[in-house]
Amino acid sequence: MTDHPQPSSGEDSLIARYFKPIATDPGAFGLLDDAAILRGHGEDIVVTTDAIVEGVHFLAQDPPDTVARKALRVNLSDLAAKGATAAGFVLTLALRSADDAWLRPFARGLGEDAAQFACPLLGGDTVSTPGPLMISITAFGRVPAGQMIRRSGAKHGDRVVVTGTIGDATLGLDILQGGPIAIALADDAAARQALVERYRVPQPRNRLAISLRGHAHAAMDVSDGLAGDIAKLCAASFVSAAIDIQSVPLSEPAASLVARGAVGIEALLSGGDDYEVVCAVPENRFEAFTQAARLAEVAVTSIGSIIAGASVPRFLDAQGRPSPLSRLSYSHF
Amino acid sequence: MTDHPQPSSGEDSLIARYFKPIATDPGAFGLLDDAAILRGHGEDIVVTTDAIVEGVHFLAQDPPDTVARKALRVNLSDLAAKGATAAGFVLTLALRSADDAWLRPFARGLGEDAAQFACPLLGGDTVSTPGPLMISITAFGRVPAGQMIRRSGAKHGDRVVVTGTIGDATLGLDILQGGPIAIALADDAAARQALVERYRVPQPRNRLAISLRGHAHAAMDVSDGLAGDIAKLCAASFVSAAIDIQSVPLSEPAASLVARGAVGIEALLSGGDDYEVVCAVPENRFEAFTQAARLAEVAVTSIGSIIAGASVPRFLDAQGRPSPLSRLSYSHF
Repeated sequence: MTDHPQPSSGEDSLIARYFKPIATDPGAFGLLDDAAILRGHGEDIVVTTDAIVEGVHFLAQDPPDTVARKALRVNLSDLAAKGATAAGFVLTLALRSADDAWLRPFARGLGEDAAQFACPLLGGDTVSTPGPLMISITAFGRVPAGQMIRRSGAKHGDRVVVTGTIGDATLGLDILQGGPIAIALADDAAARQALVERYRVPQPRNRLAISLRGHAHAAMDVSDGLAGDIAKLCAASFVSAAIDIQSVPLSEPAASLVARGAVGIEALLSGGDDYEVVCAVPENRFEAFTQAARLAEVAVTSIGSIIAGASVPRFLDAQGRPSPLSRLSYSHF
Repeated sequence: MTDHPQPSSGEDSLIARYFKPIATDPGAFGLLDDAAILRGHGEDIVVTTDAIVEGVHFLAQDPPDTVARKALRVNLSDLAAKGATAAGFVLTLALRSADDAWLRPFARGLGEDAAQFACPLLGGDTVSTPGPLMISITAFGRVPAGQMIRRSGAKHGDRVVVTGTIGDATLGLDILQGGPIAIALADDAAARQALVERYRVPQPRNRLAISLRGHAHAAMDVSDGLAGDIAKLCAASFVSAAIDIQSVPLSEPAASLVARGAVGIEALLSGGDDYEVVCAVPENRFEAFTQAARLAEVAVTSIGSIIAGASVPRFLDAQGRPSPLSRLSYSHF
């Protein structure tokens, strides 16, 4: 538009080079202003924020495009579970250096996911750090006023329903770290790759958001381990649950590892990074919810029931005996 | 309300202990859910995000309550400059450990500022890092639809107006680092303390937000040095400016240091961390703006004029000669 001289600044040119091309929403002002705009239409704006840290949530050797996708998707997963339609996000990127070989694929992966999930980049901040890379994203969604799905709201008799498959990501992390699963799958490169992919690139269930709004009493995303996250949902709803371990959906590689005794089911139920949705659906809405999920092409599985009471949720084996799930979920501190 | 057992998690209890007490807004759901709500009233939501990193934007020995205040205030400063009324914020805290002696005053300072600036904590994320502390905040404000003040919009003939005083923070940082200003002020503890305070705890001009909306053509906050930030505002507006260096408002300690030759005015005009507002106000609104600022108890000073053209803004000394301001602003990369 003009050859007006821009004040030179490495940070500004980094933003212009890598992120301006993907900040296509008018509310982003081409990343040339100090703030962005979310247009108000009378709905509620759902806000969620999640950060990922090198060495904690992703590994230094993870491909940069997968790091970008994971950073955005862990937030999209929260929007999905809350029944919100994605509206946009802002990004804080803490970098040791402006490394083109890392930033170019990072920005490409971010832009592709922003387009795929209709969640445009609205703004951000880049800072230098001598420490590990960190990507902090705050994402926005929209719901009709008052209709965000809460953790609370689950009721006695509701079905406990989970999307996708559980435990793949924790197996993928073990493989990347050269743990026992890497050895158990030494001869199966395809299975190793599938599980690693589940760790690096979660599949947030945003296509299910509107169905959740229509049918679920309560929902949250499964990020810190299914067992612990169900316990959190129950605690917030002042209820308990009985979960049938045999019903928990496993991928083919995960099921095969369990069948061979290479991993215990408890490790899958308490492992993190699933980024599936767990929700409580009343019995009389279950059929309609299942049908809506089918139309949205999201697999859903009923794994148990919400029950009254204040006890910790019980996880029952094939004989109906409670399984001890002592390490319920991942905590940073 | 109940003695329902909560799943134990260090992260959850950290949040409950330190941050739940200050998350008083109903949209925060007591920090017990995965997302927060900003109610829509048809206005635009202004979104800004800024992170501060230990050793880069604050020092390891800075009191924790001032670190919290700075993290929030650098974002409040953006909202102020955009003419937005503060609506709330989310916090990402990257910590090496959950250290009570640090977290308690941090949360206290954050809560006090959230109350003072009517900008409630809505949610957040805590992550562990082996690296430097980092606090990333995304803050929200409201403006009537379409009324956010942009960087662009400054026009030939507008006054260039700045709030408060310029250059104090960069002097304060020099003092904390034991630089030449620390030596020059060795006998003046009060001046040292005043300048250090300006570095550690910015004074965002949120009381001026509505007046800016009513009178300014363009505005931004001064965070990376006045000279460079004016150049950015001019570039975004496709104009230039002539700034009278003698008019730039200095605090008493800063003016005295300049008069004694202990620091050059250029260092003050290019130093960062001012967190004042610079804006372009049309001549026929200047008197009304000044009066509104007086009512808001925010000092404002006219320091020059917007002029047509594509040249870099000129900074003129007492004799009207252009000053070379080579290092225009701070950049992270």
